[in-house]
Amino acid sequence: MPASTAYLWHAVSLFDGLRSHAEPMSVLVENGRISRLWPAAQCNPSDFPHAQLLGTGGTLTPGLVDCHTHLVYAGNRAHEFALRQAGASYSEIAAAGGGILSTVHATRAASESALIEASMPRLDALLADGVTRVEIKSGYGLSLADELKMLHAAKALGQLRNVHIHTTLLAAHALPPEYQGRADAYIEQVCDVMIPAAAEAGLASAVDVFCEGIGFNLAQCERVYRAAQRHGLAIKAHAEQLTNLHGSALAARYQALSVDHLEYLDEAGVAAMAEHGTVAVLLPGAFHTLRETQLPPIALLRQYGVPMAVASDANPGTSPLCMPTLHLNLACVLFGLTPDEALAGMTAYAARALGLPEHGQIAAGQSAELCWWAAHSPAELAYAVQPNRLRQRMLDGVLCDAQ
Amino acid sequence: MPASTAYLWHAVSLFDGLRSHAEPMSVLVENGRISRLWPAAQCNPSDFPHAQLLGTGGTLTPGLVDCHTHLVYAGNRAHEFALRQAGASYSEIAAAGGGILSTVHATRAASESALIEASMPRLDALLADGVTRVEIKSGYGLSLADELKMLHAAKALGQLRNVHIHTTLLAAHALPPEYQGRADAYIEQVCDVMIPAAAEAGLASAVDVFCEGIGFNLAQCERVYRAAQRHGLAIKAHAEQLTNLHGSALAARYQALSVDHLEYLDEAGVAAMAEHGTVAVLLPGAFHTLRETQLPPIALLRQYGVPMAVASDANPGTSPLCMPTLHLNLACVLFGLTPDEALAGMTAYAARALGLPEHGQIAAGQSAELCWWAAHSPAELAYAVQPNRLRQRMLDGVLCDAQ
Ligand SMILES: [Zn+2]
Ligand SMILES: [Zn+2]
Repeated sequence: MPASTAYLWHAVSLFDGLRSHAEPMSVLVENGRISRLWPAAQCNPSDFPHAQLLGTGGTLTPGLVDCHTHLVYAGNRAHEFALRQAGASYSEIAAAGGGILSTVHATRAASESALIEASMPRLDALLADGVTRVEIKSGYGLSLADELKMLHAAKALGQLRNVHIHTTLLAAHALPPEYQGRADAYIEQVCDVMIPAAAEAGLASAVDVFCEGIGFNLAQCERVYRAAQRHGLAIKAHAEQLTNLHGSALAARYQALSVDHLEYLDEAGVAAMAEHGTVAVLLPGAFHTLRETQLPPIALLRQYGVPMAVASDANPGTSPLCMPTLHLNLACVLFGLTPDEALAGMTAYAARALGLPEHGQIAAGQSAELCWWAAHSPAELAYAVQPNRLRQRMLDGVLCDAQ
Repeated sequence: MPASTAYLWHAVSLFDGLRSHAEPMSVLVENGRISRLWPAAQCNPSDFPHAQLLGTGGTLTPGLVDCHTHLVYAGNRAHEFALRQAGASYSEIAAAGGGILSTVHATRAASESALIEASMPRLDALLADGVTRVEIKSGYGLSLADELKMLHAAKALGQLRNVHIHTTLLAAHALPPEYQGRADAYIEQVCDVMIPAAAEAGLASAVDVFCEGIGFNLAQCERVYRAAQRHGLAIKAHAEQLTNLHGSALAARYQALSVDHLEYLDEAGVAAMAEHGTVAVLLPGAFHTLRETQLPPIALLRQYGVPMAVASDANPGTSPLCMPTLHLNLACVLFGLTPDEALAGMTAYAARALGLPEHGQIAAGQSAELCWWAAHSPAELAYAVQPNRLRQRMLDGVLCDAQ
C-alpha cells in the first residue's frame, strides 16, 4: 500500500531517468507518488511542513532496474573459475563437472527454500546498491518441475524483501542432458508444456530464449515465440552474443520487449529493433568476464534511436557480478556509453525492457521508486565504483532500509 | 593494545596469505595474536571454553592490504569522465580544467580537515570490503606545505578508523604549474626540502616517483632515490605504465620495495626486480579505466619468481574504484592471475611491498589481522564481485565493526 506520508528531498543533483539536470532540484513525494519536481532555487523546505525532509544535497535517481538477471540458482562456480585461471580448457572444465550443466545439476537438486536461501545474498547485494526492480529468469531447471520451482523461488524473494520482481521463463536456455541430440523434442516440451504451465500459474510475464549456435536455432526460437504469444506472454531473447544468427531481427518481428547481449548485431538487426520498438539490453558484465573483444554496435543503436538498457546479467558462469553500479561503470568504460546513457539504461530504458514504459522515471504522477546517494552528481555513480553510497531507497513511496 | 580475549573460527575455508587450504581449518586467536591453525577435523570447539566462537564455515583470510592508493584528495573528476565519454579529447578536457592538475588545485585549496572529510568515505569503502592496512600517497599537493598537509590527513584517517595507514611521499608525481619548464629545479626542491621535511616529521616511511615520459626521467628519479636513502626512507616507483623507460631496473638497483604498474616491463627489468627482491605491484584498475591493452609480463614475473602484489591504485583519474575485491576480480580476468595469486597479491605480497615480509599471513605468532567472509571459498572473493560479503574484520586481535 502506498504510504500517506509526504517526503521532500531538497537541492539534490537529479537524474530523472533520461537525463541529468544541470541545476539542483527539489522533489516532493505525496501519497506514494512523486507529486512535484522543480528547481531548488524556488523551493523553501519550510513551506512544506507536512513533508519530512529526507535529505539535502547528494544525488537522487529513480530506483535502479536490473532488467536481465539469472539471480536464482544453487551452487557456485568459483572452483571452475579457479581452474580456468589456472589454464584448464573448457573441455577439461566440462570433464571436471563445470559449465552451465553444473548449475543445472545443483539447481535441480536444491529445494525451493534452498534456492531462496542461496539467492538471497545476491538479491540483497543488488538492493544495497540501489535496485528497486529486478527481472529474474529461470533456465537452470530445464524440466517442468524445476523451471517452475525456480520461478516460485524468484517470486518468493519478492515477498521477503522490499523489491519488485519480474519473472521470465527461460526454459530454452540450454539443452537438458536427457534431451541430448533431441533439441526439437525439448522445444516441443517447452512450447506445449512448460510455457502453458508457467502462464496458467501466473509464474512468468515473459518468455526468453538463448538464440545461439550453442543454444537454439532460429526455427526453434520462433516456435517458442509463437507459444509465448498464444499464452499472452511477452518475448525476450539472448541473441548475437557470440555469433550473428540474425536472432534479433526475428525477435523484433515478434514484438520482443528486448533483445539482450548483441555484440555481433548488424545494421539490419538494429533497423529491425528500431522498427519494432525493441530495447537493446547491453550486458557488459558478460563482455568483461569472457574477455570479449567484439563490441556491440553502440553507434548504430544511437543512430537508429534504439533505446539501450544496461543490466547485470547476474549469473554464475559469465557474470558473477552482483553490483549494479559496477555495470554502469563497465557500460561506460567498455562500451563507451556516457554516464547519462548508462543511467538511463538502468532506469527508464530498463523499465521499458520490462514492458513498463512509464516506470524508471522521476516525473510528477509516477510511483515513487527512488534512490538517494552520497554522490555529488549522477555521473559519479558510473565514474566511481564504491560500495555503500546508497543512503535511502524508496519503493512505492515507502522508505526501505538499504539492507 | 592487543585484546586479552581469545577467539575461535571453526571449519573455515582458509586462505593463509600464500595459498588456499584444501581442508576446512580452525584458527585460534589469543592475546591479539594467531596462536594456532589446524585442520577442523581435529578441532572440537568445546575444548576451547575460554575462546569466543566467532564463526563456523565461511572463508577466513588475512586482512586485505591495499599497498598502492592515492586515497587522499579533494574534488572529483566525474564531470571529466562524463566529458571524456561524450567524446572530448584530452586537450579539450585539460582546457576545461580537467586532468591531474584539477585535483592538485582542489587539494591545495582544501584544508586538512576538508581533505579528511572528503577521503573518509573512500577509506570506509575499503574497510567495508576487508582492508586492514592501506598505503596512502601524497602527490596532489606538489608544494612542501600541501604535500605535508596530505600526509597529515592520511595519518589522521588512521586515528579516526580501525586501520593501519602507511604514508608515502609522492612529491615527484607531476610537475607543479609554477615549475613549468623547470623540472630539475622541482626535483631539487623535492630532494633538498620536501624529503628531508617529511622524514624529519615522521610523516612518510617511503618515497615514490612517477618515472614516465609525462612524469620524471631516470636521472631525476635517481636523484629522488638518493635523497630518500640519505633520509632513511624506503623507495617505490610508478614505472613502465605507458612506455618502457627501464625505470624498474633503476628502482630495483636502489633496493625499491616495489615497482608498480609495469605494463611495459621487459625481461631485463623483471630480472633486475628478481635480483633485488623488489615486489611487482599490479594495478588492474588503471588498466581497466584506461582501456589499456598492453598486459604486464605475468608469465615472466612468475618465471623469475618476482612476487606479485595487487592494489587498487584508488585515485580520481585512472582508478576511481574503491573496492579491493573488485581488483582481485580484475587481476584475474584482465591479467590472468589465479584467485590464489590475486589474494596473495593483496595479503602477503602486498605486505612485502610495504616492507613487512611477515605480515599479511595467517600463521602462528602473527598479529591477528583477519577477515571472515560470507563466501564458500577464497576463490569466490575474486570470482564474484558482490558488496557486503565481509562479516568480521579483526585488527591486532580486536574485532572491528565492518563500518
Ligand atoms: Zn542472460
Ligand atoms: Zn599510483
